[in-house]
Amino acid sequence: MSYTYNRLDKDDVVLLMVDHQAGLLSLVRDFSQDEFKNNVMALADIGRFFNLPTILTTSFEDGPNGPIVPELKEAFPDAPYIARPGQVNAWDNEDFVKAVKDTGKKQLLIAGVVTEVCVAFPALSALEEGFEVFVVTDASGTFNQTTRDAAWNRMSQAGAQLMSWFGVGCELHRDWRNDIEGFGGILAKHLPAYSNLIQSRDATLGS
Amino acid sequence: MSYTYNRLDKDDVVLLMVDHQAGLLSLVRDFSQDEFKNNVMALADIGRFFNLPTILTTSFEDGPNGPIVPELKEAFPDAPYIARPGQVNAWDNEDFVKAVKDTGKKQLLIAGVVTEVCVAFPALSALEEGFEVFVVTDASGTFNQTTRDAAWNRMSQAGAQLMSWFGVGCELHRDWRNDIEGFGGILAKHLPAYSNLIQSRDATLGS
Amino acid sequence: MSYTYNRLDKDDVVLLMVDHQAGLLSLVRDFSQDEFKNNVMALADIGRFFNLPTILTTSFEDGPNGPIVPELKEAFPDAPYIARPGQVNAWDNEDFVKAVKDTGKKQLLIAGVVTEVCVAFPALSALEEGFEVFVVTDASGTFNQTTRDAAWNRMSQAGAQLMSWFGVGCELHRDWRNDIEGFGGILAKHLPAYSNLIQSRDATLGS
Amino acid sequence: MSYTYNRLDKDDVVLLMVDHQAGLLSLVRDFSQDEFKNNVMALADIGRFFNLPTILTTSFEDGPNGPIVPELKEAFPDAPYIARPGQVNAWDNEDFVKAVKDTGKKQLLIAGVVTEVCVAFPALSALEEGFEVFVVTDASGTFNQTTRDAAWNRMSQAGAQLMSWFGVGCELHRDWRNDIEGFGGILAKHLPAYSNLIQSRDATLGS
Amino acid sequence: MSYTYNRLDKDDVVLLMVDHQAGLLSLVRDFSQDEFKNNVMALADIGRFFNLPTILTTSFEDGPNGPIVPELKEAFPDAPYIARPGQVNAWDNEDFVKAVKDTGKKQLLIAGVVTEVCVAFPALSALEEGFEVFVVTDASGTFNQTTRDAAWNRMSQAGAQLMSWFGVGCELHRDWRNDIEGFGGILAKHLPAYSNLIQSRDATLGS
Amino acid sequence: MSYTYNRLDKDDVVLLMVDHQAGLLSLVRDFSQDEFKNNVMALADIGRFFNLPTILTTSFEDGPNGPIVPELKEAFPDAPYIARPGQVNAWDNEDFVKAVKDTGKKQLLIAGVVTEVCVAFPALSALEEGFEVFVVTDASGTFNQTTRDAAWNRMSQAGAQLMSWFGVGCELHRDWRNDIEGFGGILAKHLPAYSNLIQSRDATLGS
Amino acid sequence: MSYTYNRLDKDDVVLLMVDHQAGLLSLVRDFSQDEFKNNVMALADIGRFFNLPTILTTSFEDGPNGPIVPELKEAFPDAPYIARPGQVNAWDNEDFVKAVKDTGKKQLLIAGVVTEVCVAFPALSALEEGFEVFVVTDASGTFNQTTRDAAWNRMSQAGAQLMSWFGVGCELHRDWRNDIEGFGGILAKHLPAYSNLIQSRDATLGS
Amino acid sequence: MSYTYNRLDKDDVVLLMVDHQAGLLSLVRDFSQDEFKNNVMALADIGRFFNLPTILTTSFEDGPNGPIVPELKEAFPDAPYIARPGQVNAWDNEDFVKAVKDTGKKQLLIAGVVTEVCVAFPALSALEEGFEVFVVTDASGTFNQTTRDAAWNRMSQAGAQLMSWFGVGCELHRDWRNDIEGFGGILAKHLPAYSNLIQSRDATLGS
Repeated sequence: MSYTYNRLDKDDVVLLMVDHQAGLLSLVRDFSQDEFKNNVMALADIGRFFNLPTILTTSFEDGPNGPIVPELKEAFPDAPYIARPGQVNAWDNEDFVKAVKDTGKKQLLIAGVVTEVCVAFPALSALEEGFEVFVVTDASGTFNQTTRDAAWNRMSQAGAQLMSWFGVGCELHRDWRNDIEGFGGILAKHLPAYSNLIQSRDATLGS
Repeated sequence: MSYTYNRLDKDDVVLLMVDHQAGLLSLVRDFSQDEFKNNVMALADIGRFFNLPTILTTSFEDGPNGPIVPELKEAFPDAPYIARPGQVNAWDNEDFVKAVKDTGKKQLLIAGVVTEVCVAFPALSALEEGFEVFVVTDASGTFNQTTRDAAWNRMSQAGAQLMSWFGVGCELHRDWRNDIEGFGGILAKHLPAYSNLIQSRDATLGS
Repeated sequence: MSYTYNRLDKDDVVLLMVDHQAGLLSLVRDFSQDEFKNNVMALADIGRFFNLPTILTTSFEDGPNGPIVPELKEAFPDAPYIARPGQVNAWDNEDFVKAVKDTGKKQLLIAGVVTEVCVAFPALSALEEGFEVFVVTDASGTFNQTTRDAAWNRMSQAGAQLMSWFGVGCELHRDWRNDIEGFGGILAKHLPAYSNLIQSRDATLGS
Repeated sequence: MSYTYNRLDKDDVVLLMVDHQAGLLSLVRDFSQDEFKNNVMALADIGRFFNLPTILTTSFEDGPNGPIVPELKEAFPDAPYIARPGQVNAWDNEDFVKAVKDTGKKQLLIAGVVTEVCVAFPALSALEEGFEVFVVTDASGTFNQTTRDAAWNRMSQAGAQLMSWFGVGCELHRDWRNDIEGFGGILAKHLPAYSNLIQSRDATLGS
Repeated sequence: MSYTYNRLDKDDVVLLMVDHQAGLLSLVRDFSQDEFKNNVMALADIGRFFNLPTILTTSFEDGPNGPIVPELKEAFPDAPYIARPGQVNAWDNEDFVKAVKDTGKKQLLIAGVVTEVCVAFPALSALEEGFEVFVVTDASGTFNQTTRDAAWNRMSQAGAQLMSWFGVGCELHRDWRNDIEGFGGILAKHLPAYSNLIQSRDATLGS
Repeated sequence: MSYTYNRLDKDDVVLLMVDHQAGLLSLVRDFSQDEFKNNVMALADIGRFFNLPTILTTSFEDGPNGPIVPELKEAFPDAPYIARPGQVNAWDNEDFVKAVKDTGKKQLLIAGVVTEVCVAFPALSALEEGFEVFVVTDASGTFNQTTRDAAWNRMSQAGAQLMSWFGVGCELHRDWRNDIEGFGGILAKHLPAYSNLIQSRDATLGS
Repeated sequence: MSYTYNRLDKDDVVLLMVDHQAGLLSLVRDFSQDEFKNNVMALADIGRFFNLPTILTTSFEDGPNGPIVPELKEAFPDAPYIARPGQVNAWDNEDFVKAVKDTGKKQLLIAGVVTEVCVAFPALSALEEGFEVFVVTDASGTFNQTTRDAAWNRMSQAGAQLMSWFGVGCELHRDWRNDIEGFGGILAKHLPAYSNLIQSRDATLGS
Repeated sequence: MSYTYNRLDKDDVVLLMVDHQAGLLSLVRDFSQDEFKNNVMALADIGRFFNLPTILTTSFEDGPNGPIVPELKEAFPDAPYIARPGQVNAWDNEDFVKAVKDTGKKQLLIAGVVTEVCVAFPALSALEEGFEVFVVTDASGTFNQTTRDAAWNRMSQAGAQLMSWFGVGCELHRDWRNDIEGFGGILAKHLPAYSNLIQSRDATLGS
């Protein structure tokens, strides 16, 4: 049984940020609040760094789900922004699907809240249509780890690839020489342990 | 390898509640008692909300396994109720299988106690017969997490889809506009964190 | 070093419910949401069952902290209700302290959100004034377990007694014969595992 | 501040087994069921080995709390057996206190279910009367670890000493030479890891 | 993709107990010692109850691995007993494979210590030869949970089915009416929580 | 035994940040890296908000311990900065003790890395000299939770009060009306879950 | 669906140690530091014991990633050592791929830091080229367990086999008789629990 | 209530290593085997570095408890070695107490296996006689964390100070300038994370 490595290609990826809304975020408990916020913003910074076409979508912003987190909106001021009138699965919204298809990309990078619904539903729909789907697991959150385990299993069995924001960044970057400063800056900002390494080294060099 | 998204369709689902009996429930330790009771009743409320044909079954009610939890019986007073005389696997009971087939549905939503037996056995039997099987993982409980992990693995490898009650509800509902009040009411009742969001919003609107 | 057992006496207790507000509750992550809601309402039911004088207090209800959870307000419609204009420590609010002292009780049963602030601060203030303080640990929540551990340590070292709602109920009740039905009803409602025992027994008796 | 080591003395100890009843045991979830049963029976074997005067007590045996576990009753067929008519705190029952005081011992070894009530209440009462109290923590169980942590804290702050059945056995035994076979037999029976050591050694000696 | 439910059939199963030796057992740390001993003996009792042909094997009994646990040897006094002279994978031992094939069964029920070696190696070898392999996960132990997770993954991906001793017993038994007393006796002995249910029920019936 | 509530008083506190150095931070594993960085910077923001006299100290900056984290140095550009030439316990350094005593404050708020050394040693020394010591537990880190538990126990038994940065901020602030915007800004920045509440409320108000 | 057991064959394996560098190691938090160091060195000892062709590679050694751990360099002084100038995926480096292919082996044993990047990327690339890939899970580390779970899933779904260093050693060794002393020496050095068994046995033999 | 900081003074300390025997070590499960071995040997290296008078003691070496771990015996070839003929509490052995008192030290540093017996018993006995007792918590192990928690509580309440080997080393060393190389060497050997820092720094300096 031969295997093809469907590898993230920065020229063939669209980033989908689904339902990172203030109310829904308060439901996320499979990550600590600090970790999760950092993960989401790290993914956003990666999207911007690689100039990935990005689509934002929300559900019921004027209800309890709350507004999109403003930092995300600010990060992608010109991205298509689909405020869905009611569809739970973003893929059931024609505007959303059209925005995805208009990019012409075949690799979907999806993160969202909550994992088993807002991420899994469009992921499965897109897989059915032949897209390559990459779930950013640590920028996607839900009620508890049991729910997460089931959601990951369902998506993985359907063919989605499970990644982390750091893995996504590295697979897109491919070679440090493409931009050492730029990519290193993202790590320094979002990985305190890596930032410590840089600071220690700089101090030693300066000594 | 093409993939088909077997998606829950409220017109093609039958809900199977297997062996949620007072004695057996005392064996469940992969969830806290409060969480598990809430999960089971949330699934019941979803079944009623979508008018899913529902089948209740029990084993040895007059032995240590104990009676079905009365709230479940009350929730589905008219559902077929199969008190199995001895079969461990509900699918080995002709009345049960007949009740399932009489619904004419091809998607089975299964929850029960204990997961690796009362859920897994009929799930595997039904998969063999070509049904689409969806396991409601958080309304199914067992002795400990190790046992659960093995049971999930066996069912998933056989083709069952692992979901949570919240995911089930959302996949069935499809679009909030179908009934905002009704579906929101289930969330408010069974997701205290979501209820908090509603209360905060209502208070702000009223201020 | 002699020891005096300061034992809860239902005729000498006042129940203080501090800042159980919809917004603040969304911050509680040292309990699952289902468990915590059940614990808080179980404590409320105990307060009502023993006719304990009860005082409700909140901070900034019209800000992000949100409104008091409506079930609590409904449980104690006639209780003194102190909406503090700004004091973090309820004991810094004269009306609150007056309401406490007006009861003439010397035992304080405190629960609240978040533990290290809304519970710990008035607990320490009251200990300094010579009250006996009993913290209901499982009806008090906070950001994570590390924070809880530190808060428990601080209160315990100051002389507060750490209890759970079940222990509180049992210490107040003293003897089942005082009201078997009433007290058993609270357990049946808030302890699903105990409810299972009752159901199994009833079924066996009826068989 | 001088310290006196109140050390278990097999001639001055009475063993109190409180409410190890079939129904209540089903509520214990801070230990796995296998561990807890083993711990309780290990403590019973220690009591018998050292001929400790032992008192059994239960609450509401004919209600949902269920009967005392039969192995315990069989282990101590001649022990005073106090079926309390309603008192939650065994120390509120005159027969129980009389049975304790009739032994003339001043060290109480207490285990029971649930920890924060059936163990903590009589422990605190006995401490107030000047007894030395030793809680057998791993033969005492309750709903979850949070509840246990609070109960341990309350008892410890009151002056109770927290021990495990193994520590109890060793502190009572003092010197292996008093009975190598007898004490080793208890360890071999209740500590599988120790039994493995014995088997490996015997096999090597026999080789 | 059609699925066949390879279901344990008591007439087509051989039970393989691999390297449950005193020394190796001391390495097992993914279960508590009490749980693991209980699980192994429960599986042995199931093997005897269903008269499953059973094969015992060990490696280097006279070295640090130590002797087979005597309770296992006693449980199966007449079973083929293959003391392997050096092969790590039992399937590399001709006598072992011959003993398996002589039974004429095509379903292998395997448990052993340590999971990733003594269980996984013969499991994978047997799968390659076309046997149906069922791993009894909770009667198989290893160094830690990380190692276990990897071992389960490897075996599951190869086609082994992961089960627990309780699931095995239930799948073999099929119908309680085949022998209520006998099978119930195994549960009462190895599932303290189930034993509690029986005791409570008996007490109620006798009341 | 009377109790005095030694309560943080913003006019009587000095903040001590001990050894938050890039190398040492890489050793901290009782918090996730994101949480810990956030906690340390939250404490720094609190120190600045209340204009607390603050003292920075480091050990061996030009060795493997690495430089102080630059964000801390920037937060307190004018604070006394004691680069200790070798003393492990900062209190063994005369300059450090002089800097503390020069503030004339009697309440010490200490955080540092690692907890059982860099925090515990000066905390115990200061307690001996009669200072009131408050340990900021979540801005202090160490190798693992076992080490932390022991360190907390040692400091607590000596009389130190264990707090979290949030509790510190609230106890210093006393009354929201002192500066709603300012204090709320710190919470919004360092408590993503609280920030979500604010965003949801603002969105509702604006709707 | 037939299954082929791709079993490690010491004559067909090349060992790849990827990016075990001092800086990167400080990021590993899914293992305790002691465990991880032991695991990596155990794998190195296995590589040497079986004379496996071994390839070392690093990324950016003179940046924050730091130098290769010197014990590894010393263990394999003559191994090809590929200091990659920038490629994140070692398989994107022609020298590395050439070194692998020059060995003529078709089984790759890979370990590295961090798992989801430095291990997963070359693992997936090699699978695509038809190599058999074995990931040494416990000699590969990353930021946290969530990230590890996703990385393991991705590699396993692609066809990589997940193993531990102990399983690798045993599968390569096949038969203890090949070299009892040599292989036993590795276990004694890297498995303290096994070393204990040897010491106990030797003591008994010498008694 | 004034507090005296009883601080480890290298001229007033005796190190007691109690029952670190091969058989007993196999019972330790509150630490991973790699961590525990490292912790014990780190403490031994600290004892040697500071030339602390050291006493070794064992119980029943020729029984299942097994021989003292040879590395410890080698580390302290000239230390008093008390093979107790039967006393469980080392302090009940006159030779042991005499060896302790002959050192003339008043600070006891105790580590051993198992914590609640071999450490706690002599610790409590020594406290009663007025010694200052420091328990090295991470070089002392036992069956599980529940047992450890109870043992720590008992010792702490009696006045023992709970420390880790790293804290012990730092409190004894007081000032890095006393011997940077020597003390740093211990850290490099027993703290892989610290060793990483040194290696990174050295590499940077050499670059």
